[in-house]
Amino acid sequence: MEGLSTVCGAGSTQSRNSIAIHIYAANSDMKDRAFYNSDGDFLIVPQLGTLDIQTEFGHLEVPPNHICVIQRGILFSVRLPSGPSRGYICEVFNGHYELPDLGPIGANGLAAPRDFEIPVAAFEERTCDFTVVSKYQGRLFQRKQDFSPFNVVAWHGNYAPYRYDLSRFMVINATSFDHADPSIFTVLTCKSVEPGVAVADFVIFPPRWAVQDHTFRPPYYHRNCMSEFMGLILGEYEAKKEGFMPGGASLHSTMAPHGPDRTTFDRASTEVLKPVRVADGTQAFMFETHFMMNCTPWGLKTCGKIQPDYYKVWQDLKSNFYSK
Amino acid sequence: MEGLSTVCGAGSTQSRNSIAIHIYAANSDMKDRAFYNSDGDFLIVPQLGTLDIQTEFGHLEVPPNHICVIQRGILFSVRLPSGPSRGYICEVFNGHYELPDLGPIGANGLAAPRDFEIPVAAFEERTCDFTVVSKYQGRLFQRKQDFSPFNVVAWHGNYAPYRYDLSRFMVINATSFDHADPSIFTVLTCKSVEPGVAVADFVIFPPRWAVQDHTFRPPYYHRNCMSEFMGLILGEYEAKKEGFMPGGASLHSTMAPHGPDRTTFDRASTEVLKPVRVADGTQAFMFETHFMMNCTPWGLKTCGKIQPDYYKVWQDLKSNFYSK
Amino acid sequence: MEGLSTVCGAGSTQSRNSIAIHIYAANSDMKDRAFYNSDGDFLIVPQLGTLDIQTEFGHLEVPPNHICVIQRGILFSVRLPSGPSRGYICEVFNGHYELPDLGPIGANGLAAPRDFEIPVAAFEERTCDFTVVSKYQGRLFQRKQDFSPFNVVAWHGNYAPYRYDLSRFMVINATSFDHADPSIFTVLTCKSVEPGVAVADFVIFPPRWAVQDHTFRPPYYHRNCMSEFMGLILGEYEAKKEGFMPGGASLHSTMAPHGPDRTTFDRASTEVLKPVRVADGTQAFMFETHFMMNCTPWGLKTCGKIQPDYYKVWQDLKSNFYSK
Amino acid sequence: MEGLSTVCGAGSTQSRNSIAIHIYAANSDMKDRAFYNSDGDFLIVPQLGTLDIQTEFGHLEVPPNHICVIQRGILFSVRLPSGPSRGYICEVFNGHYELPDLGPIGANGLAAPRDFEIPVAAFEERTCDFTVVSKYQGRLFQRKQDFSPFNVVAWHGNYAPYRYDLSRFMVINATSFDHADPSIFTVLTCKSVEPGVAVADFVIFPPRWAVQDHTFRPPYYHRNCMSEFMGLILGEYEAKKEGFMPGGASLHSTMAPHGPDRTTFDRASTEVLKPVRVADGTQAFMFETHFMMNCTPWGLKTCGKIQPDYYKVWQDLKSNFYSK
Amino acid sequence: MEGLSTVCGAGSTQSRNSIAIHIYAANSDMKDRAFYNSDGDFLIVPQLGTLDIQTEFGHLEVPPNHICVIQRGILFSVRLPSGPSRGYICEVFNGHYELPDLGPIGANGLAAPRDFEIPVAAFEERTCDFTVVSKYQGRLFQRKQDFSPFNVVAWHGNYAPYRYDLSRFMVINATSFDHADPSIFTVLTCKSVEPGVAVADFVIFPPRWAVQDHTFRPPYYHRNCMSEFMGLILGEYEAKKEGFMPGGASLHSTMAPHGPDRTTFDRASTEVLKPVRVADGTQAFMFETHFMMNCTPWGLKTCGKIQPDYYKVWQDLKSNFYSK
Amino acid sequence: MEGLSTVCGAGSTQSRNSIAIHIYAANSDMKDRAFYNSDGDFLIVPQLGTLDIQTEFGHLEVPPNHICVIQRGILFSVRLPSGPSRGYICEVFNGHYELPDLGPIGANGLAAPRDFEIPVAAFEERTCDFTVVSKYQGRLFQRKQDFSPFNVVAWHGNYAPYRYDLSRFMVINATSFDHADPSIFTVLTCKSVEPGVAVADFVIFPPRWAVQDHTFRPPYYHRNCMSEFMGLILGEYEAKKEGFMPGGASLHSTMAPHGPDRTTFDRASTEVLKPVRVADGTQAFMFETHFMMNCTPWGLKTCGKIQPDYYKVWQDLKSNFYSK
Repeated sequence: MEGLSTVCGAGSTQSRNSIAIHIYAANSDMKDRAFYNSDGDFLIVPQLGTLDIQTEFGHLEVPPNHICVIQRGILFSVRLPSGPSRGYICEVFNGHYELPDLGPIGANGLAAPRDFEIPVAAFEERTCDFTVVSKYQGRLFQRKQDFSPFNVVAWHGNYAPYRYDLSRFMVINATSFDHADPSIFTVLTCKSVEPGVAVADFVIFPPRWAVQDHTFRPPYYHRNCMSEFMGLILGEYEAKKEGFMPGGASLHSTMAPHGPDRTTFDRASTEVLKPVRVADGTQAFMFETHFMMNCTPWGLKTCGKIQPDYYKVWQDLKSNFYSK
Repeated sequence: MEGLSTVCGAGSTQSRNSIAIHIYAANSDMKDRAFYNSDGDFLIVPQLGTLDIQTEFGHLEVPPNHICVIQRGILFSVRLPSGPSRGYICEVFNGHYELPDLGPIGANGLAAPRDFEIPVAAFEERTCDFTVVSKYQGRLFQRKQDFSPFNVVAWHGNYAPYRYDLSRFMVINATSFDHADPSIFTVLTCKSVEPGVAVADFVIFPPRWAVQDHTFRPPYYHRNCMSEFMGLILGEYEAKKEGFMPGGASLHSTMAPHGPDRTTFDRASTEVLKPVRVADGTQAFMFETHFMMNCTPWGLKTCGKIQPDYYKVWQDLKSNFYSK
Repeated sequence: MEGLSTVCGAGSTQSRNSIAIHIYAANSDMKDRAFYNSDGDFLIVPQLGTLDIQTEFGHLEVPPNHICVIQRGILFSVRLPSGPSRGYICEVFNGHYELPDLGPIGANGLAAPRDFEIPVAAFEERTCDFTVVSKYQGRLFQRKQDFSPFNVVAWHGNYAPYRYDLSRFMVINATSFDHADPSIFTVLTCKSVEPGVAVADFVIFPPRWAVQDHTFRPPYYHRNCMSEFMGLILGEYEAKKEGFMPGGASLHSTMAPHGPDRTTFDRASTEVLKPVRVADGTQAFMFETHFMMNCTPWGLKTCGKIQPDYYKVWQDLKSNFYSK
Repeated sequence: MEGLSTVCGAGSTQSRNSIAIHIYAANSDMKDRAFYNSDGDFLIVPQLGTLDIQTEFGHLEVPPNHICVIQRGILFSVRLPSGPSRGYICEVFNGHYELPDLGPIGANGLAAPRDFEIPVAAFEERTCDFTVVSKYQGRLFQRKQDFSPFNVVAWHGNYAPYRYDLSRFMVINATSFDHADPSIFTVLTCKSVEPGVAVADFVIFPPRWAVQDHTFRPPYYHRNCMSEFMGLILGEYEAKKEGFMPGGASLHSTMAPHGPDRTTFDRASTEVLKPVRVADGTQAFMFETHFMMNCTPWGLKTCGKIQPDYYKVWQDLKSNFYSK
Repeated sequence: MEGLSTVCGAGSTQSRNSIAIHIYAANSDMKDRAFYNSDGDFLIVPQLGTLDIQTEFGHLEVPPNHICVIQRGILFSVRLPSGPSRGYICEVFNGHYELPDLGPIGANGLAAPRDFEIPVAAFEERTCDFTVVSKYQGRLFQRKQDFSPFNVVAWHGNYAPYRYDLSRFMVINATSFDHADPSIFTVLTCKSVEPGVAVADFVIFPPRWAVQDHTFRPPYYHRNCMSEFMGLILGEYEAKKEGFMPGGASLHSTMAPHGPDRTTFDRASTEVLKPVRVADGTQAFMFETHFMMNCTPWGLKTCGKIQPDYYKVWQDLKSNFYSK
Repeated sequence: MEGLSTVCGAGSTQSRNSIAIHIYAANSDMKDRAFYNSDGDFLIVPQLGTLDIQTEFGHLEVPPNHICVIQRGILFSVRLPSGPSRGYICEVFNGHYELPDLGPIGANGLAAPRDFEIPVAAFEERTCDFTVVSKYQGRLFQRKQDFSPFNVVAWHGNYAPYRYDLSRFMVINATSFDHADPSIFTVLTCKSVEPGVAVADFVIFPPRWAVQDHTFRPPYYHRNCMSEFMGLILGEYEAKKEGFMPGGASLHSTMAPHGPDRTTFDRASTEVLKPVRVADGTQAFMFETHFMMNCTPWGLKTCGKIQPDYYKVWQDLKSNFYSK
């Protein structure tokens, strides 16, 4: 996939116990070229521009506020009908994305199985100079052939790419008092073999009602045993109104304390609590992993987008215990 | 326990794979008398009158809108400081009540471990004509002794009776659209060995905000693989305003279709949806089990409280598909 | 379902840990009448006559050599387009039928998921005197209503009735020497909570090649920790050419020794072994369960079909060790 | 072990989550020398020359078409009674080889427990200059002692080396139509902690009958989430008649598409299908792993046995969909 | 088996979820007669007289202080070479006896796998009037045949009867202070599907050293969620010197409090603690089960061996808290 | 933590599947400085000097013969009220320490849950130049702040540091004959996802009675699939009287054979066996792991404490089989 830059990752592909987060930015179609990833599965989150993805299983159209998953070994080619394109990819090297077990949420809630759309079989019988690129253990290999590989006429089984429209997410949250964990916004999870410990969770912060009484409603201040990589698809994020733009990203590492900025703290601490809409017209998301992430040179420097004074948003916060 | 009548049950105590639901109504203290249940655990839901329970582990004061659990084999004696007393008991013959696994709800939500209160050790050194009654395989046995059995001066371990204040329940529910399953209101569950299949769930319908857009908000019409025994502690139940009194009970058997009455259907189908409070000043609850229940003669007749025309609340409902 | 007679069973519906085997024989359609089973799931094996089953989910046409499963709580009505009808039913009171885990058989073999067919949604909007009969804990209840209950216009989820064509079964067996267990013919299994112990296995003996060298090819002589209920849909059974008719049944109880008759033994012990077709034009099957079965009076006597001298097929067998 | 060269591997010994494949070629006995592997277990597949292995537990004679497993920490010494010796070793660094769970195959089939032979205890009381070599984290260490370490007079437990005669393998395969996965030929598996995902499977392609109707009988064209390392002990491999010699090896990496050559495709697509013997007088095998393998310099170059134009066997294959 | 009387049991054979405890007393050999139990497995504890048991698998000689297990479906015949015979049987209807998982005890301790002895194959080719009796769902059935059924010449697998010499038990216990649970004396367990909950534990109290300082060394006073059936093979039981004879039995039901008698209490409370031998020359045992037991009329009355004033051993115990 | 040197480790922090063993030696308090470990949990074993540890949860006083655990992400600061300080740390990068499942040991034995002490909440409101140091993926990061981070006024949950007094350990061991595995001395274990395979076991050899008859009582000679890191807190170790000082350490790698020295062997082989006290006034311990350890340069050389002729303690041992 053209223009793909890796931001951060953990583990190594060789141990299969690892994860990588990429950002892509592309301007042109993959003409007579296809790609497959031998290493793991891609969860793709377009932020700008619709992706028209041709796969061996058929076509997927993926506009922003939708996601798609293309699994290990599946050939695909991307067209950009709406012009330049930008987005996020979370690659997992073992296991697959699946719906979380819902527990007491029961039979309905969060993402519904019936909203995950798989392609209708489609094929082309076409002679041409075609190039297939494969990523194997992080390196790229290519082969040439004189026909299109999208010549699969039918398929069965459940190993197939799919897309999901994030606006279909049925939001669950606290409706009397107190604050639910962000895990309640989990769309998909890639489980590790350790129960309760995710290789990767894909979590969104969708439009919804907030009604909790006697509660500090923004995300609370916390340290976490997970790494939190946040991105923004649309609008502005509810816990950080400034400095976090669509297409941007933040990474809060394992055990690094974080929370809302001073302005958000003050507002949320003083406003009268009644039912309000939050996050209308916006869609922030999080890739969360139990791995400790390393940033690539691209992520730390080459991209040229680092906010060196990000930490200052917390500088203003005061100790409130006695002085209050 | 004086005045205990069994309403319905399933299985047999001998196979340990069973459940029973009782109603109690008592007017006097258990003076110099104690009881223990060799068969299983009692989850007690007082509806009228505070229970002052003396146990081998210490004292539990349990007013209405609180519950308590007294496990198999634990001696206890009940005093009624606030006069006559009435309530519900769900007895499970194998396993114990525990908090549900929260799944994506995460670390906070529903009933919190820290709100379950266990007794401070207390004892009495007292000579008297004391009677201890035991229930063993559904039959009562008694022994006489010349001292109080509440002479335990200290204890350790986690096999101890406890109480819980239902107003501490942190309510989670749908906050955009659609209807969550009632399992989202689970306070305690007694698991079977089959994952996802409960011997008994204790579920409450507490005061909360309802905000779902584009949704029929009352409990939907359904058939269920569980048996649903409902009771009412306070106020009036949201899906049935009439004919369901505090201290009353309903049983919807496995696969029997049910849902709101005509009035509720009409109102909920036409009203403008905005955030509203529901269930303020009320507390309905459900004992839900995967067992198919049998009613006792007491439950079917002796109690004298049967509503023979209960089914008529649904007679008025019309087929709406074409005619609408 | 008209004309349903129970042959044998185990456990009790109340404990949900049980099974029952029925035989049905029907001559007329269920007009304006529907049935649902609150107790468990039906696996139906038509032996004579096609069943045209109307369910809440749509229609299933089930001719002989097909099976269908109708789960607990689903309303259905049966028409007999091809005249009189006869067959077998295995009812399980807990759990559901599912495909066996294939183990080393891998991704392909035995019954394929894609060959299980579910109904297309279908409904009728019809006013009439309709009767719905329910079986609850082995007893029948009925309700009257003035419209057809088959008014469900759409559905989602995976709790739906289905049919399967037995000729689609991909047969796996020994291809060098020795004899595979009949479990290798498992179409569907209803698992118990004990790994490897089935509530019920549905096993067929389909047309196939037999090629094992140095092997006694018919079913070997054995005792079993399972109860084996056999039936015959078409043709003649390979291990018992006489006295076992289509529509008939045999029950070999737990630990009762059994095997081929004398004729089969002699033939299989002396013939030259080369690849041959077996069971062409026939379809025998087995309901196998770890429960110990009891026969009903109907099964033991009322049916009038008992073979009192069945045991004599083994009388002729000789001890062969020394004398050979 | 003299003459051992590592071909490929995955992971690192330090994480214990890894595997290595070696080839050995030896000309002389290990006189007064013993070896043990601290890192993992060896599955040894002799291709040329019988191995006479002295272990602390007794002697194992392992001719070609047999295998043996020598576990981590067990001292052994090899003699070559039949001259030069050559073969394959699959080393696993965590877990142990075991029989696969048979699933519906039931109680009999594939490799039988009773055919795995362990040594009879044997010892020697001998003074000499003895050297013991240990492999620890991939490095070799040695110690000198003045007596033979094979002085263990008795042992108990189930941690013991064993051998298995591949001709004892009871072959199971498709006997009506369609193609079974090669997993059906699994002799031994080393499980990972992830159910269904093997660290290593040892699979053979033994002599057997092929009888499938309406089926392309050779191994089908596929991509795989496993790495497939194939070797040949005897004869010629059924899917590649030329260019694959006994003692040779091929590695098809994860997600690399492969299948039979043109000649095999044409023959199998046109021949009349009837029962035939396949693989008589031959024994190919596969080490299959979910790890992505890296080749060592020895495997890629030093060995001098690479077939650079291997890929050409597929060049001739034509697209057959329309043109056919 | 002649002279077998059932003392107590739980559940029903039909649900397979049950247990029964029997006592046998026999005077004569089973000549030309064999028995097998279709219902479950027998764990036999001879108390008087050696059993010479002929099985299909070979012979087992079982003198007192040994036990044997004969599984469901295995034919056996008993001879009494040492005259009259008496003992205990614990029958389990589902699952099998196995060694307990040792946990931190590690690789050695309690009963060792290598001390369980299985028969050497033996057979007889004998013509005679032979009767085979089977127990099926608690009822006896018999068949006649003209040859001995002990004509099995060889066998393989691990479903075979075995014996164990109780003096081989490697005792583990507290060696500094405090009292270990009797579960530490578990020889064999029959697990239920619920982890940690046994259908039946076979526990012995063998000769050993007692060294705990600052500890009340006899069995402590307790109530239990298990039913405890005790028997005595040899000598006298450490917690009850009088009134408990070899061949006798006691049953302490679920949640019935019990402990040592007054004499034992006084002695153990005052004696100076130093290392001493306990239980030399004696062997008491326990069948422990999580089922609640019912006594048969034979056990409660017919046997004529009830101690009506057993409870009086505890009457003398004084409340010691304040008065001490 | 000042003066912390890493001795050995396995895996890498990045894969989270790893362990490290450190030795610390400190002379001064951490004034206005705190530390937290983002990588994993510390199990700290003071050998010299009491640690007064201030944590966000309150204070822990940890003298020698006590241990404490401080989990990942928890800020702490150490004071040394009793002067110089020295000890051992076992760091685990995934999972947490917990009590071992006791198996047949039952409800009481080894370390008791009630003896693990957690801090009482304590806080300080203090302005100062404070430095917080964090270890993240093995590297140190620091931040400056103008207030003490120990300003947490209350906490709930079970993620809290704790201490344990090793003299509370209830010792279990063999009390008739034979030798129990050292796993019977397990205080805490950090489980891996593989049942029975520990990331790290913390094992002690406490004062106790030894009573085994017919047994070689010192630790037996063995090779092990675990790495054994031993340390000594007090006194002298029972299997090595000389050359192993308090504060010292030994590492026996996977599969390296070891056992008592010649003197211990001779004494234990000839002495008359009667009950004796062992290990009075001493406390040796072991960190045991299934990982294969690498030593750091510090551990191999820098520390200057290596015993190059350690192996000689076994040189004197003679082969005893024939010559005896």
